Amino acid sequence: MAGAVGPEIERLIQLLARLPGLGPRSARRAALAMIKRREQLLEPLSRAISDAAAKVTVCGACGNVDVTDPCTICRDPRRDPALLCVVEDVGDLWALERADAVSGRYHVLGGVLSALDGVGMEDLTIGPLVARARAGEVREVVLALNATVDGQATAHVIADLLDGSGVAVTHLAHGVPVGGELDYLDEGTLAQAMRARRPA
Amino acid sequence: MAGAVGPEIERLIQLLARLPGLGPRSARRAALAMIKRREQLLEPLSRAISDAAAKVTVCGACGNVDVTDPCTICRDPRRDPALLCVVEDVGDLWALERADAVSGRYHVLGGVLSALDGVGMEDLTIGPLVARARAGEVREVVLALNATVDGQATAHVIADLLDGSGVAVTHLAHGVPVGGELDYLDEGTLAQAMRARRPA
Repeated sequence: MAGAVGPEIERLIQLLARLPGLGPRSARRAALAMIKRREQLLEPLSRAISDAAAKVTVCGACGNVDVTDPCTICRDPRRDPALLCVVEDVGDLWALERADAVSGRYHVLGGVLSALDGVGMEDLTIGPLVARARAGEVREVVLALNATVDGQATAHVIADLLDGSGVAVTHLAHGVPVGGELDYLDEGTLAQAMRARRPA
Repeated sequence: MAGAVGPEIERLIQLLARLPGLGPRSARRAALAMIKRREQLLEPLSRAISDAAAKVTVCGACGNVDVTDPCTICRDPRRDPALLCVVEDVGDLWALERADAVSGRYHVLGGVLSALDGVGMEDLTIGPLVARARAGEVREVVLALNATVDGQATAHVIADLLDGSGVAVTHLAHGVPVGGELDYLDEGTLAQAMRARRPA
């Protein structure tokens, strides 16, 4: 390999292989696709990535990534200031925005509490979240955390911290995914969906 | 989504999704990973890609991609000028180089003949290959094409074109992959491996 490709291509492959979802083999394929499609892929990607490197920043208010701080969502006056949706990661924020599911603003925790992974309160933005929630405008905090053990434990901790603050704390409904087949769902989800059944 | 991320991030995601092996979802994850790891990933990738865009070129002799033309392999005096290994794509050349399998030089076809995909002789570098093979130095052409129907049909066409040129035309051995389990192999491979059995 060292003889076949120059250090420039080797370096590109190594960096691509660090992206989630790409291993060494798919990184080589991606690098080759870029090189072979110089005008359609390599040069536009070069510009897009250096653009992102130059402009993208983290919103000081909510933790979203955007080209402005505060971010587009935090600056949007049509967003309901009374509703604050807490997510683990920016990817979850993107998912909720694609679903157009949240009329309020967000708070990105930057992870969930995990004894196993050594993630404590000080590693997340739980302190700033509590301060934001207690500042006056917020009426409801929706905990849109992943339905994992750590996600749910973190939700409990936040709910405890906001207890007595006068802010309503809610979480996303559990149930059968739209389009989901019962036969493939785990028992926990089915039991939750049954308990939370709604009039048809 | 349009409200959640700026056009810079949206453009980056769209371009990443065009890479092989990345769909819209994994492109979003990759873009987010880059943005979150600015110094370790976003900025180095930006430099690596613009480096590649500026320097990488296609070798006029063999079709390899490199930062020089002729490429490092074509310029290497230790390579056997009598052996020419024909591959479909640069990725196959890289695979053979990783295996250190070829002592000679390469010829990249740029694909295989395919009536279904409308790939004809004029779309590949078959003409230049025949000219190279007949130029005098080459004694053997190894057809290292994929063991697909189109790959094998292309190999036959090239073998026919070189018939009577005095150049030996060979192909890679078929058989059981090293580390492969017989139980998982198709009948065609097993039959080939049996026919081509060698003394132990």
